[in-house]
Amino acid sequence: MGRLPDEFALIHRYFAPLAAGVAGASGLTDDVCTYAPPPGHDLVLTTDALVAGVHFRQDDPPDLVARKMLRVNLSDLAGKGAKPVGYLMTTAFDASVDEAWLAAFVRGLAEDQATFQIGLMGGDTVATPGPISLSLTALGILPVGTAPRRGDAKAGDRILVSGTLGDAAFGLRLLQGTSWPLSDPVRQYLIGRYRLPEPRLALGQALRQSGSVHAMMDVSDGLVADLGHICAASGLGARVRAQAAPVSSAGASILAFAPDLLSLVLAHGDDYELLLTAPEAEVDRLVGLAGQVGVDLVEIGEMSPGSGVAVLDRDGHALDLGRGGFRHF
Amino acid sequence: MGRLPDEFALIHRYFAPLAAGVAGASGLTDDVCTYAPPPGHDLVLTTDALVAGVHFRQDDPPDLVARKMLRVNLSDLAGKGAKPVGYLMTTAFDASVDEAWLAAFVRGLAEDQATFQIGLMGGDTVATPGPISLSLTALGILPVGTAPRRGDAKAGDRILVSGTLGDAAFGLRLLQGTSWPLSDPVRQYLIGRYRLPEPRLALGQALRQSGSVHAMMDVSDGLVADLGHICAASGLGARVRAQAAPVSSAGASILAFAPDLLSLVLAHGDDYELLLTAPEAEVDRLVGLAGQVGVDLVEIGEMSPGSGVAVLDRDGHALDLGRGGFRHF
Repeated sequence: MGRLPDEFALIHRYFAPLAAGVAGASGLTDDVCTYAPPPGHDLVLTTDALVAGVHFRQDDPPDLVARKMLRVNLSDLAGKGAKPVGYLMTTAFDASVDEAWLAAFVRGLAEDQATFQIGLMGGDTVATPGPISLSLTALGILPVGTAPRRGDAKAGDRILVSGTLGDAAFGLRLLQGTSWPLSDPVRQYLIGRYRLPEPRLALGQALRQSGSVHAMMDVSDGLVADLGHICAASGLGARVRAQAAPVSSAGASILAFAPDLLSLVLAHGDDYELLLTAPEAEVDRLVGLAGQVGVDLVEIGEMSPGSGVAVLDRDGHALDLGRGGFRHF
Repeated sequence: MGRLPDEFALIHRYFAPLAAGVAGASGLTDDVCTYAPPPGHDLVLTTDALVAGVHFRQDDPPDLVARKMLRVNLSDLAGKGAKPVGYLMTTAFDASVDEAWLAAFVRGLAEDQATFQIGLMGGDTVATPGPISLSLTALGILPVGTAPRRGDAKAGDRILVSGTLGDAAFGLRLLQGTSWPLSDPVRQYLIGRYRLPEPRLALGQALRQSGSVHAMMDVSDGLVADLGHICAASGLGARVRAQAAPVSSAGASILAFAPDLLSLVLAHGDDYELLLTAPEAEVDRLVGLAGQVGVDLVEIGEMSPGSGVAVLDRDGHALDLGRGGFRHF
């Protein structure tokens, strides 16, 4: 591992500045970080692992790898309407990682720390024969007992989803070499949605504060899979109108010549939008709240007694999406 | 990855039972866990990464891999005198991991969860082309502001260390094929010290509660390296008497025919004992407190103005231990 400085020098030079504003982190000179949530608040904890070649491409820009790792976890916090406070991170670097890679990786973290007003609270840096493996544990806070759970959906609830679905799936296909007749800005938009998700933090907090949301989570495994999680946890079924799934104009232009790719919109994942259920009477108000934070929120279906997710086409026939969603095994 | 069940089935079958007693973990059916420390308490957070072939051997028993991962983090909490409450874990499994491996891995976690009265609060399970990569974030609590820091040592403080040093280093050498003329129970003792460290949780809490400890941490990188961290963070130097370093009877029997291996005692790491500094007048009381929880605590040197760690032999000459301690790069 001669490409990198000594472990402690590396932490001091690259990672300690990321912890500069964190009171309990002691500039990463200690084994631990201390933190106390404000009185009356729950801590919200989430963790994710990323492996090169599985979750990101070895040749992805390192600053974007870092920012996506952070944002994927912040998206989990957004799904509960939590306010992020900081994160711990482990990095296992292989021999391909040199100081230029590391400097860009850290620059990406610093940029997003400023964007989201969070700091590095602790971590561990080790060597691996490869591939690069990263993990991040993010901490957020919200008033005690207010986290909307997957299991909180009620029969009759309307199902709402934020933003647009499928963009990241299309962007990944483009990176993998699919050639669609798209303008360069459209290509860049889709690739950007894959590489740099936008955690819906402001929206999540506004929706939680409304007091009208039942179940809520972020869409990371794909709409059908994640709605399936809400169904399973709530002991209910769901009916979704495929045509109601929100699609960007970029996505729509692809679906115009490849309508079968609607499956990517419904079941690919990596969307990092919010998925929630709420009583029908609250839908208009929630859509209005979303508008105030500048994000679209649309109704796509409803929860029902039973089990499983039915996706219906224009004619009310159920679509077969296979297993639905990205799974690791 | 056909050797393992579907990601969600895997979580449900193997990991969810580990979260059964954790109120905020929702049986791992949600993306997040909620937790609030008791009023008046700080949360103490620590994280570690482990890679097969680096931190453990691919053929190590999986239950011991799991328990060591947990204990290494609990040892960080012990080093602050914190009481552990739970942990989050990410697992990246390669194709070598089958259900038998996983079942043993989870059995190890369950066993130590019961021992240490903690639960699984969340996690993420992914596939990797290899090697197996694990990360764990442990949470502990202690009264606000009472965590003893690395930077809290004062000039004149006596340096104390718990238990015995070097056993894990000798155990690893044995596993790597070194043939020393040792009885089987002695071999097994040393290998056990490598494979299954004993986090000094009760001792750490008793020492913190004494109010007499200045700096404290666990010895994971080796006595010289970790004492060097205390020196650097406190802006002081340290003098250690090599002969005072506590050695088990098993270790002493090796040193009897290989005295040069004292370097393993002083600078190898993986000891997971406690290292602390305290005023001279408090030493006897702290040693007595340690005795009450059944652990030896011995004085090995003192903090002084200056910088760096000097290790002195019987004649007061400084020993050269090279860089001292295990480093990753």
